[in-house]
Amino acid sequence: MALIVQKYGGSSLADAERIRSVARRIVDTRLAGNDVVVVVSAMGDTTDDLIALAHRLCDHPDERELDVLLSTGEMVSSTLLAMALKQLGQEAISLSGAQAGISTDAAHSRARITRIDPARIKSELGRGRIVIVAGFQGITDGMDVTTLGRGGSDTTAVALAASLGAKVCERYTDVDGVYTADPRLVPEARRLPEISYEEMLELAGYGARIMHPRAVEIGQVYNVPIMVASSFNDSPGTLIHGGVEMEIRNKVSGIAHDLEVAKITIVGVPDRPGIAAGVFEPLARAGVSVDTIVQNASLDHITDLSFTVARGDLEKAMEVSCAVAGEIGARSVVSDARVGKVSIIGTGMLNTPGYAARMFRALSDAGINIELISTSEIRITCIIEEGRVPDAVRAIHRAFELEREA
Amino acid sequence: MALIVQKYGGSSLADAERIRSVARRIVDTRLAGNDVVVVVSAMGDTTDDLIALAHRLCDHPDERELDVLLSTGEMVSSTLLAMALKQLGQEAISLSGAQAGISTDAAHSRARITRIDPARIKSELGRGRIVIVAGFQGITDGMDVTTLGRGGSDTTAVALAASLGAKVCERYTDVDGVYTADPRLVPEARRLPEISYEEMLELAGYGARIMHPRAVEIGQVYNVPIMVASSFNDSPGTLIHGGVEMEIRNKVSGIAHDLEVAKITIVGVPDRPGIAAGVFEPLARAGVSVDTIVQNASLDHITDLSFTVARGDLEKAMEVSCAVAGEIGARSVVSDARVGKVSIIGTGMLNTPGYAARMFRALSDAGINIELISTSEIRITCIIEEGRVPDAVRAIHRAFELEREA
Repeated sequence: MALIVQKYGGSSLADAERIRSVARRIVDTRLAGNDVVVVVSAMGDTTDDLIALAHRLCDHPDERELDVLLSTGEMVSSTLLAMALKQLGQEAISLSGAQAGISTDAAHSRARITRIDPARIKSELGRGRIVIVAGFQGITDGMDVTTLGRGGSDTTAVALAASLGAKVCERYTDVDGVYTADPRLVPEARRLPEISYEEMLELAGYGARIMHPRAVEIGQVYNVPIMVASSFNDSPGTLIHGGVEMEIRNKVSGIAHDLEVAKITIVGVPDRPGIAAGVFEPLARAGVSVDTIVQNASLDHITDLSFTVARGDLEKAMEVSCAVAGEIGARSVVSDARVGKVSIIGTGMLNTPGYAARMFRALSDAGINIELISTSEIRITCIIEEGRVPDAVRAIHRAFELEREA
Repeated sequence: MALIVQKYGGSSLADAERIRSVARRIVDTRLAGNDVVVVVSAMGDTTDDLIALAHRLCDHPDERELDVLLSTGEMVSSTLLAMALKQLGQEAISLSGAQAGISTDAAHSRARITRIDPARIKSELGRGRIVIVAGFQGITDGMDVTTLGRGGSDTTAVALAASLGAKVCERYTDVDGVYTADPRLVPEARRLPEISYEEMLELAGYGARIMHPRAVEIGQVYNVPIMVASSFNDSPGTLIHGGVEMEIRNKVSGIAHDLEVAKITIVGVPDRPGIAAGVFEPLARAGVSVDTIVQNASLDHITDLSFTVARGDLEKAMEVSCAVAGEIGARSVVSDARVGKVSIIGTGMLNTPGYAARMFRALSDAGINIELISTSEIRITCIIEEGRVPDAVRAIHRAFELEREA
């Protein structure tokens, strides 16, 4: 008997009818002869509603209290799902994060899982029960409830799958898999039957909307296959796993794009050791996450340093950058809030020549100017004018013929 | 520094504005130099809403799951109140029933508190914090969440007050104390400054709407003074305590009434030992709670046995009574679904003659027929036609001049 961990997102559990539909799906999995552990998010907009309630009472809700408040959302959906399963004649039990043995550090609102003691889950499975675990939450050694922050329920699911040695972690949401590009931009985009952990991580913004990178990373470290599929249909979904490199090597898997990007360039930076650290350490201390970093070739020991940040961080990032620029003797700092990012992703792509050139040619033919270029082993990223991002994604998708089956 | 336990009901916490108002009241108590532990119910109609949600998913929600579901209501209100207190500059922390050390048996939906370990509460108080405890809930030795059933949050509050050795348990709701009769029936009814535990318990239905008997009993056993007052004004309320017998002995404290009553008479019962047990044991097994019991004088070893039950239990009670009547050879069973109950309550009343006569005279003068009479040490109860109950309460209130200060 195989063990399957399934995770259902808030939109799949938004009302009684959808909960019943999810319950039927779980029963099918159970009746196919599997042990099933289910991780749930809070119903629909519950979490946002609870946050709004807290903000009606205070400007800066205490993080410990907010964690307890938010954790109730997943307790509600987990108990309702257990009831729906019982109504279908299945033995089922809901467990809170604490009961499921999920220990975390005490960093409220963004706790990290420190260990999982799956004894209670195993005992309930041993009694023939379907186990429903409230996602997104854990408990500290001091018995205080924590929440895991962004991607929390995905993280709970993959971590539990790793801890229990599950055959697969199935992640059900309102999208039916990973596509070669965002289907909202590229109607002919094709669903990928499989993708590697690395590629999924490189899909960045687009991929993160499907499965949080934090959860993908845990899947990669513990080698847990993750199936991403829709809870609204029976489309087969996309399997994120580690065994695909050989087959899909040298292929472009997909195109990622991100619109919420801003670019900062520090002009006239003295090119000497320690300068990069001197720039990026203060940004990290200010809590600004820096994305693509490009340092141009040095001319007379003077260089320009460009990087991108999330658009919401631009103001803070400029403040820090201007202060730093003064200290290191740079000439000036300029920013552009209206840029976007387009990337092609493919395992081992860079070992094969021609991919970058083909991408740049596609952009050029579409009359799109490239402002920055950055690459990794399996990704090539161009920063371009924000307004041209949709055109760019479509042009590259055509250039690599991604609408065709590999 | 005295320790005060305060309990706020759902109507006092129904929205953000009321929660803020409760927070200000708590701060006043704290600034007066007291340690404060607060027990909360769920906001407004939350509990009913959650029950309705469960019933949309299944006909008979599993009790364990329902307990977890309902327990979230008090977690939400406790965290919001803690946030509101912090917003007012006070150190505060919310604790679930489990964190507050409230252990119960495993009787889901109606658990009894088995013990309280107040270590965490004491430690938080020691750090200068106001402690907010989610009422109505506890945890089993197997780490499963339970709820305490009816009167649960009142019970949590008084039990915590007992366990912590609090000076007083203040119970805030939308009524400002115990009156000599239900003010909706008797506009001139007077608020009692104090009442004994026994009298409060004898107030039955009327008293139970103010403070659940289960909580009053705990107060009595552990001698915890309970102050019942309104959270919407500064009226001084009513103190329920044990030290009042001497002063108010031989006084009628108040009038209780109950409309939801039905009467059953088993006619022609053979008057021999064991008959009463033979009647009431099957009723108890069927879960029917029997109230007033009257057995008339025996004539030729044949008697009539009358008793009252809650109106909702009448059908079940008649079923059992008819079966029993056949077995014991009684003549017939008759019922009356439209009776009501009026009682006068006063500690030690029966040691002084004249109270019963004065009550019966008042009813007679008002043209009200008495169907059954039952008495205890501190209570005289008449069962009368339901439609005359309001008149009866007003007539008795006048007869004992309860509107005048004692």
